[in-house]
Amino acid sequence: MSEAPFDVVQRSANGLARTGRLHTAHGTVETPAFVPVATRGTIKGVEPDALRALGAQVMICNSYHLHLAPGEEVIADLGGLHRFTGWAGPMMTDSGGFQVFSLGAGKAHGVGKVASVFPDEAVGDAPRRIPGDENSLVRLGEDGVEFRSILDGSWHRFSPESVVTLQRRLGPDIALVLDECTSPLHDYHYTKAAMERPHRWAERALAAFAESDARGQMLFGIVQGGAFRDLREESARTLASLDFPGLAIGGSLGRSKAEMHAVLDWTVARLPEGRPRHLLGIGEIEDIFAAVRRGVDSVDCASATRIARNGSVFLRGAPRHRINLRNAAYRDDPAPIDASCDCFTCRHHSRAYLRHLYRSGELSFARLATIHNLRTVIRLMASIREAIAADALDDLAREWDAGPPR
Amino acid sequence: MSEAPFDVVQRSANGLARTGRLHTAHGTVETPAFVPVATRGTIKGVEPDALRALGAQVMICNSYHLHLAPGEEVIADLGGLHRFTGWAGPMMTDSGGFQVFSLGAGKAHGVGKVASVFPDEAVGDAPRRIPGDENSLVRLGEDGVEFRSILDGSWHRFSPESVVTLQRRLGPDIALVLDECTSPLHDYHYTKAAMERPHRWAERALAAFAESDARGQMLFGIVQGGAFRDLREESARTLASLDFPGLAIGGSLGRSKAEMHAVLDWTVARLPEGRPRHLLGIGEIEDIFAAVRRGVDSVDCASATRIARNGSVFLRGAPRHRINLRNAAYRDDPAPIDASCDCFTCRHHSRAYLRHLYRSGELSFARLATIHNLRTVIRLMASIREAIAADALDDLAREWDAGPPR
Repeated sequence: MSEAPFDVVQRSANGLARTGRLHTAHGTVETPAFVPVATRGTIKGVEPDALRALGAQVMICNSYHLHLAPGEEVIADLGGLHRFTGWAGPMMTDSGGFQVFSLGAGKAHGVGKVASVFPDEAVGDAPRRIPGDENSLVRLGEDGVEFRSILDGSWHRFSPESVVTLQRRLGPDIALVLDECTSPLHDYHYTKAAMERPHRWAERALAAFAESDARGQMLFGIVQGGAFRDLREESARTLASLDFPGLAIGGSLGRSKAEMHAVLDWTVARLPEGRPRHLLGIGEIEDIFAAVRRGVDSVDCASATRIARNGSVFLRGAPRHRINLRNAAYRDDPAPIDASCDCFTCRHHSRAYLRHLYRSGELSFARLATIHNLRTVIRLMASIREAIAADALDDLAREWDAGPPR
Repeated sequence: MSEAPFDVVQRSANGLARTGRLHTAHGTVETPAFVPVATRGTIKGVEPDALRALGAQVMICNSYHLHLAPGEEVIADLGGLHRFTGWAGPMMTDSGGFQVFSLGAGKAHGVGKVASVFPDEAVGDAPRRIPGDENSLVRLGEDGVEFRSILDGSWHRFSPESVVTLQRRLGPDIALVLDECTSPLHDYHYTKAAMERPHRWAERALAAFAESDARGQMLFGIVQGGAFRDLREESARTLASLDFPGLAIGGSLGRSKAEMHAVLDWTVARLPEGRPRHLLGIGEIEDIFAAVRRGVDSVDCASATRIARNGSVFLRGAPRHRINLRNAAYRDDPAPIDASCDCFTCRHHSRAYLRHLYRSGELSFARLATIHNLRTVIRLMASIREAIAADALDDLAREWDAGPPR
């Protein structure tokens, strides 16, 4: 086993929640942490230096998108992702598995749901094609995946090993193994197969990783298994038995909040205490509480930044913790979005001005709204850490109206 | 005559160029100055606080756009444009005359050129209509203009008096009188009429301004006359005889750089020494030199920010003082845009990263490129002020390859 890069600092008395420190070559992340999503090397509208000013500790970029443009060779030649983006702190990259399936085939077919792309019956190691369209597909086999670029339709191939090499070149502190994306609509049979192959890929990824120059990088495994208890438990046990310094929870988390909570319960119970647990792609405020209560150490999610661009900004006490600045009610509202917020936007601008910028289609709006939403989530994580230390997480969740405990 | 809010500090020994100080209720502007264009209350991608960090002294907003959305009542209720936008420094608003003609009618007819909207023969005080389209037009008369909103097609009316009231409500430090927009394609007859009516409007505007509560605001007149020497001289003399504390140079500046230079020569020669001269809508780097050499004290122009969003960034020594980051040559270029630039973008990011952001359609690109272009022009104005003080403006122009003196 690798030496764990993670210290559990404090545990809540009545649950699984914990604070910790995740040590990376570019600094330490206090956990639980929120990881802003900088898909192509920047948060949309907020460049890396401004992200630092928001108190972000770590950001996650996307291997799929950076592979397609500008390409890992360009980034490696320029000194790696840290130098390329100007983000000097801890950095993660996801493996690109999710995008291969959701964008590579989904976009080409005009479907948004991964489930539509892979009919449940089409499982097997032979290349799978979308019926009626032989020009536009993802080919999946034991060796990896072939997929078309969303940019120019060119063919690319990811294998467990090539994704390790790709991320070596990009140079994040934490890389993720190649996985296969499943959907809540996939059945048991499909989900099981889509778990077992990535288990074999995980071993191959670790072997490739061990052979390459480490440079302080870590490789995390990804637990799969959909919303099926025995699969989640098997996947967690399998991944935990391998030499990963940290583990991510991926794949489908079910069709409801209740299923997601159950998946987290089953999974975390089988993960080693001493290794960090990252939950992929989840980050609504109530989900953050649910995950942290179940022992998750970090989450990444593009939702906070995506909804900001649509006018939706966080406000504690509002329905779903948010208001939409498009609303005519804010036309002449001199108040900041959130009077208790210390972000740049709330210190400088009124709801009325922000609504005007939104309605005018001004680029500044995306930045100002994104700054507020990110700052809100980053402050939330800091208060969650304090609450865990004070064993007061349930009180904080009640303040946020984030549902009953567990 | 009002007391002039302007001190000439230093004159170049061999020309008309001068440095000065323009005093406003929100601070002093060192001239010659560049005035960034914040059409709807923000520079696109650069919020007012960031503009201040770039060294900008003053910004100009657009009465037409702010009248249509969110409306001057909303802004007045919220404490005026300074509070609304968060820009605490000197601020100008233009009268909206230009937009009434170029957007109100031009957009409705899908034509970009003002000249297409008003055939030369259609001069007179009766409402003018676009042949073949009675639903979509600008109606111009002695009393002012009626025009359709580009947002919802609703009818609005600007009179010399209403534009004063509008800008009183907005609350900039410097307001401009309503004028009529002409084009280089208009003939002598048309241009003369389009000058004489605004001369009458100017007197009405001054009377309305005198009756309203001053609150430290100034009203500037606008010299018209196209590229016709006698008209320019007549307009400059007429405006100079009125009680304006400062004068803007508007209307058509001709069909070539040479004509523009001649217009500036004729106009400035008839303007009072002790009052500031603002050139509307001109701001290419070589034009800035040409204007300053002829005694212009400030210019506003959206070009620096608009070209930035298209990938074009200033670099001294490059053709037309700019490079385009779309160019494949910058794909793996680790250099900043301009190694001699002190802006945030040049201190933090490479051409390769910026090109990647541009090609990825990232919002951050517009901000980072705009910051560089604005900082470059703002620094240029500072070095122009130093060069005038040192009587070395021609040397500076040669360094910038901005054409031969005069």
